[in-house]
Amino acid sequence: MKPKHDLQLKPKYTAFVATSIDGRIAKSSRGSGAKLDWTSREDWDFFQASLARMDAVIVGRNTYNIAKKYIERRHAIVLTTRTSESKTLGMTTFLHPKKTDVKKHIEKKRYKRVAVLGGAGVYDYCLRHKMLDEFFVTVEPYVFTTGVQMFSGQKFSKYKFSLVSMKRLNKRGSILLKYKKIKG
Amino acid sequence: MKPKHDLQLKPKYTAFVATSIDGRIAKSSRGSGAKLDWTSREDWDFFQASLARMDAVIVGRNTYNIAKKYIERRHAIVLTTRTSESKTLGMTTFLHPKKTDVKKHIEKKRYKRVAVLGGAGVYDYCLRHKMLDEFFVTVEPYVFTTGVQMFSGQKFSKYKFSLVSMKRLNKRGSILLKYKKIKG
Repeated sequence: MKPKHDLQLKPKYTAFVATSIDGRIAKSSRGSGAKLDWTSREDWDFFQASLARMDAVIVGRNTYNIAKKYIERRHAIVLTTRTSESKTLGMTTFLHPKKTDVKKHIEKKRYKRVAVLGGAGVYDYCLRHKMLDEFFVTVEPYVFTTGVQMFSGQKFSKYKFSLVSMKRLNKRGSILLKYKKIKG
Repeated sequence: MKPKHDLQLKPKYTAFVATSIDGRIAKSSRGSGAKLDWTSREDWDFFQASLARMDAVIVGRNTYNIAKKYIERRHAIVLTTRTSESKTLGMTTFLHPKKTDVKKHIEKKRYKRVAVLGGAGVYDYCLRHKMLDEFFVTVEPYVFTTGVQMFSGQKFSKYKFSLVSMKRLNKRGSILLKYKKIKG
């Protein structure tokens, strides 16, 4: 039998996403089109308050590049295929998802609450690797018709969730949905 | 000044969509992957009750092929690029969107309440042509990671909506969002 503190240390993964009604998270994955300048103040406030309770964040290389100044303040794991070995700069660790066991790395670090912040490749990676227990989705009242999709999946799957709560954030109608992953 | 009854006859366009959390409306646009067999009973009931109040529906060719038996019972406009001229079969009219003024056709027919039922190409067409006043979005609690996107846009735009209402449809957490289009 495993000692009890090991069970308690199993990390909980919480993903956060801001999306248009049609499931687009940005105009483009890099450059100025990748900025989240269209999201509501209320979403930003919720997001910042939530992050304050997290031990570490996981992001992709593009997200890191855009939001470096925010990410560097935290224990951060950057998933990138550009580097052949893990390296650490301050509180930021760069990991190659195909060459490292990211989950094991996080468990070793004893992070208990881990925030998954995207982009699309990272959301997909974490969902496939059972690193997505809770999912906060802010739906902003726009339709973009094109742009970066929420998940960059290669294979159609039917991942099941259940809705924990729903909340209207402002007058225009930004909404915050909280889901939890259903096992199996 | 226009006679008052003309103003009253200006049609109201209401779009209906069922989507996964990540904005996917089907596994594929044709064949068995296009079926909506993953949507909830509660969404179906809402959808059928809503359609009963509509004068006509607009669908694309693929949607027509999949749901022919339901669509043929109604005044239906099928947007298709396969036919070079409009033809009518029973209550179904086939129109080429680039060769016909679809909006004018609908106004001529004096339909007052028109349902826009997709797929992605038709949602996009109607949004671009100001034929989308109300938007009912049922979000089913799944993530697909790939599949058909809600809108098949070519050009990034920021169409603005405001949330009219939100409602939880069942225990698992299918939700129904009602938006209205904000002009301009």
